[in-house]
Amino acid sequence: MKIGVIGLGTVGKSVLNILSNEKNRLNKEIGDIEVVKICDLKDNGITGYDFTDDYKEIINDPKIDTVVELIGGVKVAYEISKIVLASKKNLVTANKHLLAVYGNELFSLAEENNVKLQYEASIGGGIPVVGPIKENLFLNDFKNIRGILNGTCNYILTKMEEGMSYSKALEDAQNKGYAEADPTFDVKGIDTAHKINLLAHLAWGNLKEFSEISIAGIDTLTKEDIEIAKSKGLRYKLLGEANFDGKELTVRVAPMAVKKDELLYSVNGVYNAVELEGNYTGKTVFYGEGAGGDATATAVISDIYKIKLGG
Amino acid sequence: MKIGVIGLGTVGKSVLNILSNEKNRLNKEIGDIEVVKICDLKDNGITGYDFTDDYKEIINDPKIDTVVELIGGVKVAYEISKIVLASKKNLVTANKHLLAVYGNELFSLAEENNVKLQYEASIGGGIPVVGPIKENLFLNDFKNIRGILNGTCNYILTKMEEGMSYSKALEDAQNKGYAEADPTFDVKGIDTAHKINLLAHLAWGNLKEFSEISIAGIDTLTKEDIEIAKSKGLRYKLLGEANFDGKELTVRVAPMAVKKDELLYSVNGVYNAVELEGNYTGKTVFYGEGAGGDATATAVISDIYKIKLGG
Repeated sequence: MKIGVIGLGTVGKSVLNILSNEKNRLNKEIGDIEVVKICDLKDNGITGYDFTDDYKEIINDPKIDTVVELIGGVKVAYEISKIVLASKKNLVTANKHLLAVYGNELFSLAEENNVKLQYEASIGGGIPVVGPIKENLFLNDFKNIRGILNGTCNYILTKMEEGMSYSKALEDAQNKGYAEADPTFDVKGIDTAHKINLLAHLAWGNLKEFSEISIAGIDTLTKEDIEIAKSKGLRYKLLGEANFDGKELTVRVAPMAVKKDELLYSVNGVYNAVELEGNYTGKTVFYGEGAGGDATATAVISDIYKIKLGG
Repeated sequence: MKIGVIGLGTVGKSVLNILSNEKNRLNKEIGDIEVVKICDLKDNGITGYDFTDDYKEIINDPKIDTVVELIGGVKVAYEISKIVLASKKNLVTANKHLLAVYGNELFSLAEENNVKLQYEASIGGGIPVVGPIKENLFLNDFKNIRGILNGTCNYILTKMEEGMSYSKALEDAQNKGYAEADPTFDVKGIDTAHKINLLAHLAWGNLKEFSEISIAGIDTLTKEDIEIAKSKGLRYKLLGEANFDGKELTVRVAPMAVKKDELLYSVNGVYNAVELEGNYTGKTVFYGEGAGGDATATAVISDIYKIKLGG
């Protein structure tokens, strides 16, 4: 396969490293993956690749069959994604924000142009979620999905349960690199909303208008709230939840108190988990590290593998 | 696709039901799946299919491209599997015993004949495990695998922790249909050993000689053992564990005391879980119902889907 990469942050760099380190394994499984060109706006100190600062050079390169979009944000990513798919190139993206808002249009565009739009890395980092739902659990009528989908929030809540105040826990998360300088997207529940909306689309083929999702974050939770829950054997988790009653799809995000005997109670620190309830398989949970360059990069590469398989 | 089914127990019947109930969904995803012929030795009360009591009629039918083997046991299943693969037909099996013992030979035979040997249903029932390891996590160097792989044992241990004796808990499991009249394979850890050996093969391409696996079951655990563990905040789980240090593969099965802060501690009742630790993705856990006709049948059908995809 011949790929072009747009955006070379933490995940992009890990993709290059792993493609290089695991060349033999990949060659055996799917044949050669050639990185034809990389678009990055800043000097990233990496050599040995053909770089450009104009993403159109990637899209217009007739050698490239698959574009890996890793720039984040929505505006430019949306423009790029539309042109990539319309140019009949496959698109691999880790951009949940993009898909949660423009997914319906982009999924249709991929279908019309008979190319693949893959997004395993957009939910749960390196945890296999999208593939297993699409290829293993797809026969189910799903009743309900719940997810701990944001490692930053889960880390903060775990620290608050250990006794820290919200602001101390946020500061700790920032010092450890788990939270951004501006943590709004995470702590206000917006990132979780993007991901649960994408999960709803996977389960029911239906993406909720983003403005119709009820979203509450963790930034109004107090130490006292946490303590009261704890005294009742409960633990607050920021959950994304989606239900479909056969007629209406409901998607919401809020800190919810989880009981001790539920598996989600034991998902702590930066870990993520996705729980699906289906009519045939009952409750299934996928658990793991929801972020990190290397873990997320393996998900990006597994998407390339699936495209090669025809998935 | 045109399939033949050999063996029509609980799982086989669920496969037929789901293929029929989900015809539209399947048609959309992979096209028509036609059940050309079914081999079953007893009168099963099912009509509307072409039945035979001679499995050779399935293998020799030139219309059939994929054989679904659901008879269990090893002797006949081994003979059938060899002929199926040598006849250049794909094989889908839920038979962990077969693969744990004859896997090396059968996997090679599939490769030589350029056909697929799929076995998602053999580990963890309807929990997606085989696919995600092969297609998502495959870039990892795995350090360690641990699994709660037998729902019967986990149910008995959960009941013992609630205060029952081993024999009472076993009786309860038998009454509920979770344990067989002869529970040897389950409670002695043999079923768990089959599954952890297959997981080791998935992770490291290496199947341990079955006689070299150290196996202890739950049948010697007393209420006192459970109580002592409980008083230390520990919980006994029958774990299958596999490690590879770069040179040697170790596979073992034993009741092991699991700490409260580990996710496996919270896997109770008939639920199963598989935990893998990889260099890129860290710890990943797959959790769900490890048995049951419908759940296992979805795994069988997902294998048919993967064959269609070319996976």
